[in-house]
Amino acid sequence: MIGAETLVRTLVASGVDICFTNPGTSEMHFVVALDRVDGMKCVLGLAEGVVTGMADGYARMADKPASTLLHLGPGLGNGIANLHNAKKAHSGIVNIVGEHATYHVKYDAPLTADIEGIAGPVSHWVRTSMSAEDVAKDGAEAVAAAFGPPGQIATLILPANTAWSETPWDIANPPVQPIAPAARPKVDQQAVLAAAKALTSGEETLIHMTGQALRAEALEVAGRIAAKTGCRLSCMTSNGRWQRGAGRTPIERIQYPVPIALKQLESVRHLILLGTKTPVAFFAYPDKPSVLIPDTCDVQTLGEIGDDHLAALQALAEELDAVHTAPTVTEANRPELKTGALDSESIACAFGHYMPENAIVADESVSSGRGFMPYTLGAAPHDWLALTGGAIGLGIPYATGAAIACPDRKVINMEGDGSAMYTLQGLWTQAREGCDVVTVIFANRRYAILQGELAAVGAANPGRKALDMLEIGRPDLDWVALAGGMGVQAVKVDTADGFNDAFGRACAEPGPHLIEAVL
Amino acid sequence: MIGAETLVRTLVASGVDICFTNPGTSEMHFVVALDRVDGMKCVLGLAEGVVTGMADGYARMADKPASTLLHLGPGLGNGIANLHNAKKAHSGIVNIVGEHATYHVKYDAPLTADIEGIAGPVSHWVRTSMSAEDVAKDGAEAVAAAFGPPGQIATLILPANTAWSETPWDIANPPVQPIAPAARPKVDQQAVLAAAKALTSGEETLIHMTGQALRAEALEVAGRIAAKTGCRLSCMTSNGRWQRGAGRTPIERIQYPVPIALKQLESVRHLILLGTKTPVAFFAYPDKPSVLIPDTCDVQTLGEIGDDHLAALQALAEELDAVHTAPTVTEANRPELKTGALDSESIACAFGHYMPENAIVADESVSSGRGFMPYTLGAAPHDWLALTGGAIGLGIPYATGAAIACPDRKVINMEGDGSAMYTLQGLWTQAREGCDVVTVIFANRRYAILQGELAAVGAANPGRKALDMLEIGRPDLDWVALAGGMGVQAVKVDTADGFNDAFGRACAEPGPHLIEAVL
Repeated sequence: MIGAETLVRTLVASGVDICFTNPGTSEMHFVVALDRVDGMKCVLGLAEGVVTGMADGYARMADKPASTLLHLGPGLGNGIANLHNAKKAHSGIVNIVGEHATYHVKYDAPLTADIEGIAGPVSHWVRTSMSAEDVAKDGAEAVAAAFGPPGQIATLILPANTAWSETPWDIANPPVQPIAPAARPKVDQQAVLAAAKALTSGEETLIHMTGQALRAEALEVAGRIAAKTGCRLSCMTSNGRWQRGAGRTPIERIQYPVPIALKQLESVRHLILLGTKTPVAFFAYPDKPSVLIPDTCDVQTLGEIGDDHLAALQALAEELDAVHTAPTVTEANRPELKTGALDSESIACAFGHYMPENAIVADESVSSGRGFMPYTLGAAPHDWLALTGGAIGLGIPYATGAAIACPDRKVINMEGDGSAMYTLQGLWTQAREGCDVVTVIFANRRYAILQGELAAVGAANPGRKALDMLEIGRPDLDWVALAGGMGVQAVKVDTADGFNDAFGRACAEPGPHLIEAVL
Repeated sequence: MIGAETLVRTLVASGVDICFTNPGTSEMHFVVALDRVDGMKCVLGLAEGVVTGMADGYARMADKPASTLLHLGPGLGNGIANLHNAKKAHSGIVNIVGEHATYHVKYDAPLTADIEGIAGPVSHWVRTSMSAEDVAKDGAEAVAAAFGPPGQIATLILPANTAWSETPWDIANPPVQPIAPAARPKVDQQAVLAAAKALTSGEETLIHMTGQALRAEALEVAGRIAAKTGCRLSCMTSNGRWQRGAGRTPIERIQYPVPIALKQLESVRHLILLGTKTPVAFFAYPDKPSVLIPDTCDVQTLGEIGDDHLAALQALAEELDAVHTAPTVTEANRPELKTGALDSESIACAFGHYMPENAIVADESVSSGRGFMPYTLGAAPHDWLALTGGAIGLGIPYATGAAIACPDRKVINMEGDGSAMYTLQGLWTQAREGCDVVTVIFANRRYAILQGELAAVGAANPGRKALDMLEIGRPDLDWVALAGGMGVQAVKVDTADGFNDAFGRACAEPGPHLIEAVL
């Protein structure tokens, strides 16, 4: 059995059963090995930003690592932005990156690059296998690293000769055993007592959460605590996965604009962190603070991102005698459809109105979708995925990966037109795989967020040359043509009624659809 | 004057007068400063791979550095693959990469990343400006590094507060002076004598060249030496810029397939390197050597990549008394057009037939265009740009950058369909800027090179799962729709006559055109 096949078998045995790929010459033995091993699904992306973004979306929804197959340093390089987003989402990913044969690296052939150097900034774990015998063991360790908890980015570099060389293993005598994923650390009882003290102090207390704490079951416990103590509950601006909708415990999202976030947090006296850090501004702005809480606020940590958030909340509820308190929950409330002009509000109403049970919202709307939260609060229960690392170009890929992880659920991708262009190639994978994704393009023909940011940073009175760098019209993009060119059926709408029709139909019909909503 | 404006003024004063951009919040002051300074052209790309690839194409044709504007670590990450290609082409590029304000980095906001770490593997020079007063000086040093010689990648990281803060300078009292680019080192007379000795030894001698040696004037001198001594002349498989065509001195290209390259080099007794290293295989293959020359071959270096190649060849010609020898030159010979089925040969004939005087060929045909050299040898004089770093996704961007550098010349972009998908967003910039580019998509619906490589690495009998990773049909891409969606007029052809018509027309008409050639 060659090294590449020991790796594929190790991945599958370790529970990693999907590989998002864009291979090259040095990965050919791995590709052929994929063929020889049952239980590994392979999904091709036509650019590596699509590949890594799909892996992120898959990992968020499958709750386990995905693998990728990338071609040397440049292939990994193309995938960096979405690995950055995945890292910030705590998604587990095992990158398999091909490399020249170990003896060939020194000749500095055209594709030679410092792959470990490129991998480092977006990986928690990096290793280059130096012989075929090492590959299976290295693969098992990569998977263990990717599982975390929390999920991590593990990059295993596979020189071509370690992939193609024979190892001592065969089918009857398979390679090294997988490593069992680590358990989430136990609850820190001291932290629970400290949190309970704050919550019973009579002073305003906020539990600020992300990660596993945003799953319905944990939120319900948090809702009992809130009902019992009167505390507030919040999550980050951008969370990897947030379960919300009718029947679930609602929590506030800390807003992106600094003045609004400061207002949200100004009265908080005790901040209890669960999987989060103290809220800070997304960007620095002249004359605005970086840290969003008041100086007078006490900060304590109930649990780190990799801890058992459900257990921590349960322990806290027990301490507070809130285990049987009825939690705060959201009532079902689907907004009425709007008619007339198409704008963010009419789209938001259609979302809240039509969103099917168990939908997955992959949000990369950047500016246009910021106001959607109230309109979708009482919609059918759904998962909301956000742009955790702020690197645009995640939307189409992670919607695709989520759809592959959850083939029985509808994925709704909210996309800015500027963001969508970064990784539009992902639409082709949606067509090939028949993914059940509705992509809504907010076609405002500009990087609208930057026009706002220009004012926020105090850069006043931009001229034509500056504005040309923020507007993506001239020529306008035709999303119906772009989607159609990759096999995805699409429609362009510029009225609320047109949108309602198109969105309602796309929510009811399986398979990939794209709606260009001209704003 | 704020830091950002001191930087823009320093770039312009240093001879860097174009900025390829995809900005974000942290770059807003730089964008506004672009407005305030005359003499800096700005070109927007809708993805950073497009931005860095355009800068490479521009630098190759303008013979001086271009600048880019990129958004933090992920924006730079998206541009890495084409910076890798630019680095291998010895193109000069100054990357301006925005960063959080210096005091904001420690808070680990979503977009925070190790930018210097991401920049390192693709940069010769990396620096983070730590105060507004440093920015102009750092900018001048970055430009000097980018000029080389040879051209280098310089990455200057610009924290937002160093961009927005005031400096001591104003219009009447402009920031620090530019640094004059370094001269190319003088010719090494010992190396000239050694080369002359080999060339007069009576044994087979090959001068293997790239870089400045492939400009017409230097090639002519090499042609005199070849005529005088009977030596062979060759260039690398992939060169940054190679001037060829009728009336110019022809040289061999070392082929990509290892068996052919070995054959080309097996009889060489003396190898003289000018800007090159000893030829090695692009990839390692089981049972094939990495080094392509025989053990018995002597290797000597006439000049490094950054040296004055023209002067070195002139000194050598003088030493050999070849200054007045008539050089070997290519006779004009435009192939006849083919009729009937569309294949690589009929396309190659149309290229040789129609290519206008002074065309720039941006080659990213990967597999389909490998045989084009003989058909275009006697065409009108032209520049041939190649995929120097082997990282696909360069073609559309560098064709665009070349067209912007040389608005009076026709650019012909040979594109594999797989490669084209990596950075198709560049077509939009062609439409916005009215670039005179003909893109020919070799639509074979597969990563054809990999199907060959699969056999070459000995990975036999691939199954459906493996083949699915190498085929990009199902669904077929519709390039007419994709190009049209970005404002580029396009036509699909599947006969030689159809191609001849479309290509002839596109060569005669200014502005962007795309031809989908179905193979």
